[in-house]
Amino acid sequence: MDGNGTLSLVVFSGTDDKLQATAVLVAGAAAMGRPVNVFLQYWALDAFRIDRIRKDHGAAPEAGDEGLAAMQRHGGQHWADTLAQAKDIGEVAIHACALSVEMFGITKDDLDPLVDDIRGVAAFMADVDDAVAFI
Amino acid sequence: MDGNGTLSLVVFSGTDDKLQATAVLVAGAAAMGRPVNVFLQYWALDAFRIDRIRKDHGAAPEAGDEGLAAMQRHGGQHWADTLAQAKDIGEVAIHACALSVEMFGITKDDLDPLVDDIRGVAAFMADVDDAVAFI
Amino acid sequence: MDGNGTLSLVVFSGTDDKLQATAVLVAGAAAMGRPVNVFLQYWALDAFRIDRIRKDHGAAPEAGDEGLAAMQRHGGQHWADTLAQAKDIGEVAIHACALSVEMFGITKDDLDPLVDDIRGVAAFMADVDDAVAFI
Repeated sequence: MDGNGTLSLVVFSGTDDKLQATAVLVAGAAAMGRPVNVFLQYWALDAFRIDRIRKDHGAAPEAGDEGLAAMQRHGGQHWADTLAQAKDIGEVAIHACALSVEMFGITKDDLDPLVDDIRGVAAFMADVDDAVAFI
Repeated sequence: MDGNGTLSLVVFSGTDDKLQATAVLVAGAAAMGRPVNVFLQYWALDAFRIDRIRKDHGAAPEAGDEGLAAMQRHGGQHWADTLAQAKDIGEVAIHACALSVEMFGITKDDLDPLVDDIRGVAAFMADVDDAVAFI
Repeated sequence: MDGNGTLSLVVFSGTDDKLQATAVLVAGAAAMGRPVNVFLQYWALDAFRIDRIRKDHGAAPEAGDEGLAAMQRHGGQHWADTLAQAKDIGEVAIHACALSVEMFGITKDDLDPLVDDIRGVAAFMADVDDAVAFI
């Protein structure tokens, strides 16, 4: 019972609702002094491309019109800004999955500077301590 | 290696298939004597509104017609009843995410009594021990 | 801080993108010497039926045409082959959720031999150590 261990997040989904939820969890963990280790795969990685990160990434189909309207009304800051703040206040590392980078045929330069580096899944797994979530 | 630590579940999705799966995991963990800490966000929180909890929340698009038919044929009890039983037999707390409550413009009174309270993400994170899953 | 504990994965989704991501995480954990415990539910279990495992299971709606094209161009081996290799090199157990087996009205013989056995959720939960993810 410590609650001080590293929180590892494998982020697979690239819709704005899940990326907002991710950013809030990362910021909450960083505020509590936990190191956070984020691993971007598939559609989440695609959303971190430097020319797309501020574009509209939609929401899960279940959001529906009413859910989308609530999200837009609520506004608040962009998830990329929440992540930037979390990196300022805590120990937050954001890695791009090497296999997904290869799948999209991109390089580190195509990604927003929020992404620290490209990493293989085995290297990421070696850093997974206890708490790991797939988003 | 204990398997006795708290299981924390961040529940984001609000379709009936994922809420059924959630309820079964919560009940299984409670039956094994593990404390369970549930944090409702976004579409999952919406599904716990007192006037919607028993309505049809659909399923993931991938279920398809055949999957939906299997779910309906199988029937079984509602996930809200499974959660109520889990709360009776074990140490299960269900929190509403303060940010999502604000996004929907609702209050504690709009939520089913299964929900114990409203909590900020940092307070939730402080209780996250080891095992945490995002659903 | 050990990184040697068992990684437990509850796999709910049955689209090829998430099953590929699952297989890569399982293989990465197995390569690092971690035991992996997989629990197949709902649409993921359906995808492991012996007569469907090699069929097209689609991708999450958010993939879009461009994402699907990137997946297909990238190719690589099938996720079932990646899982088979992970089982060869490491300690990987794949369980079918008893409730989902009942929901689909199938038996162990209807499932690909990659699946080791059928297990109830409480028995699975008893084996969950620290790291557990829901996919």
